[in-house]
Amino acid sequence: MHTLADIAARFGLTLRGDGARIVRGVGTLAEAEPSQIGFLANPAYRSQLATTRAAAVVVAEKDAAHATGDVLVSRNPYADFARIAALFERHENAPAGIHPSAVIAADAMVDDGAHIGPHCVVGARSRIAAGAVIGPGCVIGEDCVVGPDCRLVARVTLAVRVRLGARVLIHPGAVLGADGFGLAFDQGSWLKVPQLGGVVIGDDCEIGANTTIDRGALGDTVLEEDVRLDNQIQVGHNVRIGAHTAIAGCAAIAGSTRIGRYCLIAGGAGIIGHLEIADRVTVGAMSLVTHDLREPGEYVSGTPIQPKREWRRNAARFGQLDQLARRVRKLLGEGTDD
Amino acid sequence: MHTLADIAARFGLTLRGDGARIVRGVGTLAEAEPSQIGFLANPAYRSQLATTRAAAVVVAEKDAAHATGDVLVSRNPYADFARIAALFERHENAPAGIHPSAVIAADAMVDDGAHIGPHCVVGARSRIAAGAVIGPGCVIGEDCVVGPDCRLVARVTLAVRVRLGARVLIHPGAVLGADGFGLAFDQGSWLKVPQLGGVVIGDDCEIGANTTIDRGALGDTVLEEDVRLDNQIQVGHNVRIGAHTAIAGCAAIAGSTRIGRYCLIAGGAGIIGHLEIADRVTVGAMSLVTHDLREPGEYVSGTPIQPKREWRRNAARFGQLDQLARRVRKLLGEGTDD
Amino acid sequence: MHTLADIAARFGLTLRGDGARIVRGVGTLAEAEPSQIGFLANPAYRSQLATTRAAAVVVAEKDAAHATGDVLVSRNPYADFARIAALFERHENAPAGIHPSAVIAADAMVDDGAHIGPHCVVGARSRIAAGAVIGPGCVIGEDCVVGPDCRLVARVTLAVRVRLGARVLIHPGAVLGADGFGLAFDQGSWLKVPQLGGVVIGDDCEIGANTTIDRGALGDTVLEEDVRLDNQIQVGHNVRIGAHTAIAGCAAIAGSTRIGRYCLIAGGAGIIGHLEIADRVTVGAMSLVTHDLREPGEYVSGTPIQPKREWRRNAARFGQLDQLARRVRKLLGEGTDD
Repeated sequence: MHTLADIAARFGLTLRGDGARIVRGVGTLAEAEPSQIGFLANPAYRSQLATTRAAAVVVAEKDAAHATGDVLVSRNPYADFARIAALFERHENAPAGIHPSAVIAADAMVDDGAHIGPHCVVGARSRIAAGAVIGPGCVIGEDCVVGPDCRLVARVTLAVRVRLGARVLIHPGAVLGADGFGLAFDQGSWLKVPQLGGVVIGDDCEIGANTTIDRGALGDTVLEEDVRLDNQIQVGHNVRIGAHTAIAGCAAIAGSTRIGRYCLIAGGAGIIGHLEIADRVTVGAMSLVTHDLREPGEYVSGTPIQPKREWRRNAARFGQLDQLARRVRKLLGEGTDD
Repeated sequence: MHTLADIAARFGLTLRGDGARIVRGVGTLAEAEPSQIGFLANPAYRSQLATTRAAAVVVAEKDAAHATGDVLVSRNPYADFARIAALFERHENAPAGIHPSAVIAADAMVDDGAHIGPHCVVGARSRIAAGAVIGPGCVIGEDCVVGPDCRLVARVTLAVRVRLGARVLIHPGAVLGADGFGLAFDQGSWLKVPQLGGVVIGDDCEIGANTTIDRGALGDTVLEEDVRLDNQIQVGHNVRIGAHTAIAGCAAIAGSTRIGRYCLIAGGAGIIGHLEIADRVTVGAMSLVTHDLREPGEYVSGTPIQPKREWRRNAARFGQLDQLARRVRKLLGEGTDD
Repeated sequence: MHTLADIAARFGLTLRGDGARIVRGVGTLAEAEPSQIGFLANPAYRSQLATTRAAAVVVAEKDAAHATGDVLVSRNPYADFARIAALFERHENAPAGIHPSAVIAADAMVDDGAHIGPHCVVGARSRIAAGAVIGPGCVIGEDCVVGPDCRLVARVTLAVRVRLGARVLIHPGAVLGADGFGLAFDQGSWLKVPQLGGVVIGDDCEIGANTTIDRGALGDTVLEEDVRLDNQIQVGHNVRIGAHTAIAGCAAIAGSTRIGRYCLIAGGAGIIGHLEIADRVTVGAMSLVTHDLREPGEYVSGTPIQPKREWRRNAARFGQLDQLARRVRKLLGEGTDD
């Protein structure tokens, strides 16, 4: 329970309204109750400023005049809303100590200040730092390092040689450090190429549910600090992802590709192997990157969605597109062009 | 072991043939043994009616004349075949009670009629109803509800604030209620937006293996009743999926999108965030929906698969398509068009 | 620790250099230390032969002259490098026996030479052969068979009726034998079609992290020998994949499709159900196969990635492509064509 004045002071916001008003939570403009704080980050919702029941609204100065009730003026309304929302987040208690059902290798080192949940396994030579929370059912293999204040929510696997920095958050079902997909073809069969490297995850990274990050073949797969991966992302061996890059669900990055800093990769996008992606590149949803992207900017592939009947006619023409272009050249009297 | 007459009577089918014949299982028309029942649902297989060795065939009236052996005439052959097949399904015994290796929070409530398997964890304030079967290795976090007769096959995670209706079936590796992907960018780094909502799953839903359904940021992510999700689907925070919608493997739905009732989303399709999809919309395999679909019907994006040599020529022309269209306009004497 | 002469003799390579040189590991040409062996498999790196610090380089005869240091001449440098690398791979000890925390059904049969790790579950009537290693947190359901020398790394699920041949390697989070996605629509709701078949995995297959392979509806889902699946692949019920086929991450194959031998399916590709794919077919990244592919060769769908501004113009024209083609026909005086 906080007052509007408390919240304004804590986060350096300018309050225009009743500082004594009690706040018990947060909500959207459309659904906030009179005891909750709302926010405006997306201009599409500006008209809701006039109708919201929220106790107060976090807004930019330029939008403040549209509000009919109390406002908290912010330089970055979405970020300040996130900070306010965190006041109302319930955190489960995860006391230091090892649950009796956990199985810890004799030569693993678990700090007295770490929490190891039920049914966890920690393998040979692995180290768990103070403040780390290893939730139920996690498996940490050999030669792993979990840094201070990391949180593995539940059922996370760190297979082999995975080193996490500080404050890394990993959601259930994620698998880090499994074998990269390395195969040599020899005499009619596949021969497995040993995957001798590891995975290095920088401070403040977040890894989504059921995401997989393979360990390097030679050398490591690397996420620099503050990389944010959503659910069901696949990161191949020896990929390197630059700091502050965010990747949405179901994207996939093939082996040895290097992605720059501050990139945004949308959901379902694919990047083939051995590419270089510059800093501040944005890749569209379900787009496939097949060559280096050396300049910042937004890149897209694919075709627009259409009713099937229309799509079918257009798609058939795509299959003859080169021929169509040649005919146009002919009409223009330009002869063949390749 | 059942007779044809028993089966006809049980499911209200019209038998033309030997009611005393013993049936011991089911099979495809091509592979059924003389003690098994087959079915015809797909007209492509109609010619097999004449050659099948099946004890009897479940068919629509219009196809019955093509069969040379015994038939069970049905209004909906595939559905009645499913009902017959269920007679021969082996169900493992999952007796009520809590396995001694399971770890149950002191304030969780597990009904005496629920089964909790080995190595499960049930967190604070969660409730498990009568008839629920929680298979081995499941993790149920805080403030979850598992309704009557639900079945979590094995290694399912319900992270936080997940409420399941009755008879929900969840396959291994699925993760419900993990944090949505909410990030605010502030001063060069990402700030996590607390995910304060939950997940609500209606009665009779099915969730496939390794599928992920994030909990809402504010408010809940919702599946209405009888929604069927295949494997490896990603459902973002605050998505709502209407009743009786079925989604095939590897599809992904980004945050806050609303999908109607009776929709069919094919495998690998993507739907970006904040969209509205009407009832009875069908989306093609690997199609990307980037705007609202307000009318029922089938929608597709993408290009046809071709031999690489042909594709490469056509794809290169796609990259110049606007230019090509302008040249055609010029040829037609229409000038520029935008 | 090995000498160059030892390594040459062991793998049948021709050494040109100092046989007494000590080797302690392997590395890339760019990063190998003077005690490590490097290799050249991709001609793009040929110039590094002159600058590498490696103790020796595994090369084809045709490239040997480009090396300035010691060489090991090989008929297949990548395969021989893989064999050499395996000398330096550290294998954890997995002694025969059942961890006391594992829960084994009374009628399961675990060979005395198998290893069952902590928190595993083995269900009714399942059999685990000698030499098999079942890592921590695996769940093996009913009626499964794990062949000799298989390795389930950790947290693998074999749901029901999954039979593995010899030496199958399965990475964490994989789920084999879950219910196929079989539904019959009846009177406004979905009716589940029982999935009565199983999964059969041939010798020497590898299954990636978080990959899912559903069991058959009637009959089995089958991988023949030496099939290699990367991470997060979805294989639907009753699919059959031919021997020596390799499939990269996030690909998906819908139900009842048959893929030939020696196929290569790139990352994120999709294949719809009930198709036949011939031997030695290659499918491009994120391509969608919608019809049978009866001839070997490489097949691709999709459009090239472009800067968004260019892409948007071209994509808009795709939506009018049929109309454009008709106008060109008209210009050519060909009239309508369909």
